[in-house]
Amino acid sequence: MIRATHLPTARPTYPAARLVSIERRRRGRRYADVVPQIRLALAQVDPTVGDIAGNADMVVAWTRHAAERGAHLIAFPEMMLTGYPIEDLALRPSFVEASAAAVETLATRLAFEGLGELAVIVGYLDRPTGRLPADAAAFLYRGAVVARYAKHHLPNYGVFDEYRYFSRGDRLAVVRHLGVDIAMTVCEDLWQDGGPITAAKHATVGLVVNINGSPYERGKHGVRLQLAQRRADEAGAALAYVNMVGGQDELVFDGDSLVVSTTGAVLARAPQFDEGLVVVDLGLPQASDDRVGTVDVSDGTHMAVERIDLRTAPIPAYDAAAAGIAERLAPEAEVYSALVVATRDYVRKNGFRSVVLGLSGGIDSAVVATIAADAIGAAAVNTVALPSRWSSEHSLSDAAELARRQGITHSVVPIADIVDAFEKQLELHGLAAENLQARVRGTILMGLSNEHGHLVLTTGNKSELATGYSTLYGDSAGGFAPIKDVPKSLVWKLARWRNAQATLRGAEPPIPQSSIDKPPSAELRPGQLDSDSLPDYTELDRILDGYVERDLSRDDLVKAGHDRALVDKVVRLVDLAEYKRRQYPPGPKITARNFGRDRRLPITNRWREPRPE
Amino acid sequence: MIRATHLPTARPTYPAARLVSIERRRRGRRYADVVPQIRLALAQVDPTVGDIAGNADMVVAWTRHAAERGAHLIAFPEMMLTGYPIEDLALRPSFVEASAAAVETLATRLAFEGLGELAVIVGYLDRPTGRLPADAAAFLYRGAVVARYAKHHLPNYGVFDEYRYFSRGDRLAVVRHLGVDIAMTVCEDLWQDGGPITAAKHATVGLVVNINGSPYERGKHGVRLQLAQRRADEAGAALAYVNMVGGQDELVFDGDSLVVSTTGAVLARAPQFDEGLVVVDLGLPQASDDRVGTVDVSDGTHMAVERIDLRTAPIPAYDAAAAGIAERLAPEAEVYSALVVATRDYVRKNGFRSVVLGLSGGIDSAVVATIAADAIGAAAVNTVALPSRWSSEHSLSDAAELARRQGITHSVVPIADIVDAFEKQLELHGLAAENLQARVRGTILMGLSNEHGHLVLTTGNKSELATGYSTLYGDSAGGFAPIKDVPKSLVWKLARWRNAQATLRGAEPPIPQSSIDKPPSAELRPGQLDSDSLPDYTELDRILDGYVERDLSRDDLVKAGHDRALVDKVVRLVDLAEYKRRQYPPGPKITARNFGRDRRLPITNRWREPRPE
Repeated sequence: MIRATHLPTARPTYPAARLVSIERRRRGRRYADVVPQIRLALAQVDPTVGDIAGNADMVVAWTRHAAERGAHLIAFPEMMLTGYPIEDLALRPSFVEASAAAVETLATRLAFEGLGELAVIVGYLDRPTGRLPADAAAFLYRGAVVARYAKHHLPNYGVFDEYRYFSRGDRLAVVRHLGVDIAMTVCEDLWQDGGPITAAKHATVGLVVNINGSPYERGKHGVRLQLAQRRADEAGAALAYVNMVGGQDELVFDGDSLVVSTTGAVLARAPQFDEGLVVVDLGLPQASDDRVGTVDVSDGTHMAVERIDLRTAPIPAYDAAAAGIAERLAPEAEVYSALVVATRDYVRKNGFRSVVLGLSGGIDSAVVATIAADAIGAAAVNTVALPSRWSSEHSLSDAAELARRQGITHSVVPIADIVDAFEKQLELHGLAAENLQARVRGTILMGLSNEHGHLVLTTGNKSELATGYSTLYGDSAGGFAPIKDVPKSLVWKLARWRNAQATLRGAEPPIPQSSIDKPPSAELRPGQLDSDSLPDYTELDRILDGYVERDLSRDDLVKAGHDRALVDKVVRLVDLAEYKRRQYPPGPKITARNFGRDRRLPITNRWREPRPE
Repeated sequence: MIRATHLPTARPTYPAARLVSIERRRRGRRYADVVPQIRLALAQVDPTVGDIAGNADMVVAWTRHAAERGAHLIAFPEMMLTGYPIEDLALRPSFVEASAAAVETLATRLAFEGLGELAVIVGYLDRPTGRLPADAAAFLYRGAVVARYAKHHLPNYGVFDEYRYFSRGDRLAVVRHLGVDIAMTVCEDLWQDGGPITAAKHATVGLVVNINGSPYERGKHGVRLQLAQRRADEAGAALAYVNMVGGQDELVFDGDSLVVSTTGAVLARAPQFDEGLVVVDLGLPQASDDRVGTVDVSDGTHMAVERIDLRTAPIPAYDAAAAGIAERLAPEAEVYSALVVATRDYVRKNGFRSVVLGLSGGIDSAVVATIAADAIGAAAVNTVALPSRWSSEHSLSDAAELARRQGITHSVVPIADIVDAFEKQLELHGLAAENLQARVRGTILMGLSNEHGHLVLTTGNKSELATGYSTLYGDSAGGFAPIKDVPKSLVWKLARWRNAQATLRGAEPPIPQSSIDKPPSAELRPGQLDSDSLPDYTELDRILDGYVERDLSRDDLVKAGHDRALVDKVVRLVDLAEYKRRQYPPGPKITARNFGRDRRLPITNRWREPRPE
């Protein structure tokens, strides 16, 4: 198993596999005389949005790596050359042109660097055929782009807006290489019925390569494997799935690249969240079908089958050995890895070298500090305790203790005098006075950020963000919010899991137990507890999951057994906090629906859930 | 001409018009024996998103108003019952059900209130036919929903994401009423070729009613009129266009409802930005075609023509009088009206009664204060001067003078002691020290907001937002940013225009001339001027228009005559400020591309415009 906090320094290759199984084609097709052999490499890598030159360098480096391992074909993720998602960069003509030109240059360069015999499938942004550009895959061989495929199924739900950006492709390119017919598809092509999978079946291809920019959410790997198996069965072909890893603003990609046989056997599977190469030998049916033409692809459209024969001789099959199949991560490990990778990449890709955050002694900031230290190293993490007149002794000591355990640079900046200076000018009461303290803290952290170049990490969790239990420009200030999509009850689980992992390794648990055990408090007035304003977090998180992630109505929630008055209160809090969420920093999506591009509600909104009698 | 700052208290009716012209049908169709008469009312009104009950009340009230004026048919805007745009509310089953049920209830209620004989076309959200609900129009008559139409063309560009929300309609409902065949269409159905306009032509309808939620941008009214004329010609029918007015988060709707004849003559046109009723008498061809069936609508799809005959006898034509055609507003008047309406509606629809803003003595805050006073009355506007040790005398006096002229409540809160208190705890230099002052001001304004319930207005303009010339949580703090989409050079024009309007009316100009004339400065260090960091605003705004609104490349901009180094600097500033824009409050869109849902770029983005030699 891959450790959640493991950051690869070299480029790992997952166990090189020999041929696993030679499966006879089903569905009454005729068997070929020769079963050819392809050593396939899947590059599970981490491109950066907009960095076309850097991403092209990455393609060359990993292709060399695959060539050294004797691969015949290497596949890179969706939009490898541009990064993904590129959002409105897709509408900028200079960017489209740069990407389309880069794929040509890349083909030449690979040949020039002696890598021309290794066929490369790579995602890029192609010039418009219709009104919009294409989310495309190119097949590079011997210095040329020998085939192109434009994504057919475009996702336009959840975090995806691909009808805004891309024209749909209606041609399936089938490349005959080493005796095998290979079809290229892109991401969503697997998730919707019909389309290129149907065309691939019609064309009797031996291998479907699916390249992805498929964002992580909790437990998605199970759905993904089943889907790959189903589509391999439908296509009557082996299916190779390659996905990127790394963070991009609110998305984090978990990799989970895999190869399944026609019958759904898992031939290889990469670890989640780590960069690396999957290498697997596949025995595949000898290509013999030469049909071209237009196919009804069972989704209300037609696709043209286009054939490109590279005229390379088949390699006969040889014996097989077991492929490398990495274990999936346990639930907490998976989420924690996603947060670490997302934080690491946001810091790194935006050119920061260090972060700063306020440490309250409570659980949220303790977990964020630990994620940050795991992501970029404790030496690059700066924490500040910002005690007010209402802060308790244990707040300061727990904060200091966490920093000590992890070797984090820690300082204390008392805020009482600053708050006093404000209160001399302004008479503030109740909530206004509480918010003032939070904003003084936010201003101090931003000052440290401006002075020293640290990125400010925001420590709010999803339960707070949902209910508006935070201060705009106060505790919500910052550039990146690692646990923005993590419900409070899961924050505790992550803390316990991370401590247990340390104990298993014989290390000191990074988070003081009292930060985990104490009742949560914002400490903005004497003796304040979260439970003064909010229900028990376990109950709250269940209601939020129903209302926010599953669109349940108030009535559904009451029928599910929640207290009527409590449901009303929570729903109202969520509805009224939209304006705060709109100005919140980005943070990684880990649930089926995050606050961000996954859930887009108007601020001006008088809708209130009906209350049937 | 309608004054920009005019807020209607009663419900105005634009000059009631009699029949304007009886146009014989063209394109070789046979002429009817009788030319029937329809008195058509267009309700140019301001619904609120989510307030289904309140919007239904509004339909009843305006229908009664139209009945009193003898109308036979009244049309309301797109999504009248739900408000528009509803964003992800469209995905919430309880909301869809509430809207679909409300349209049935509304039909019954209209009949119960004695308004059943007045036919009503009203926009609402209908239950899903496919995967998603429909952006629909209902035809209500004698207590029943007699016909429904689902929008065929769905916009999915700019600020629109309708593929995310709606299933496309493929049926054209043609209602025969008073001897006339009437087709309903919705908004984008006009903006794209083919579709229901083609089906309406095939069905030889006499009148196309197009209901809209069409957001304002500068000068859009010219395009809109030409489009209505072109589609009337294509349909071979008169065309009635009704649009909403009012603000909804970042969008403002300008009304501009109109009726054109088959030959493109403008029969009636409503003033921009004002609620009111257009009443016009139309002589229209006697319906005689009974074809139904499926039509190829020249956009790659087919639509079914469905006929509903209300069996109401034609009313013979009578003589015509000239219809009311309101003048369009001059360019500055139009933009200023948009900002006033958007600010008024954001305040009102979100339940605020008052606003607060910092008044620096400069042009931006002066214009925002004036917009606020015009929007909600000076008595509800609170301004605060927040002098630092670097603030000049004229800053304070110009701010006080503006407040005096407009009767705004003004106070002064010096920030030097608070800044000192921070600096005792933190050593901040340069930009970090400048930002601190801005954040102290933001914190004070937010404190006043929390204490007194005022909405904080943010005073930044588009040029600043583009280049990142603002402090996160400082001058960018607030709930609504009225001039967020107004380039600095247009801010000056608006100030001069508003003062000139006052002079024309014999009133004192609201903005002190020195606020308009002084060189812009953030006053965050001694003698600081905007021109230390930024180019001349006229030049800057031209480059920004090219880069931001028209997607020109660096090379295009240089070819357009801009200095190479300056272009590089501006492009880089824009690219690097995305993270600030992401946390900026909403403000009204007035240009072809605002910062917000119109322009969606990643924060993590290494793309830099190519610099060809």
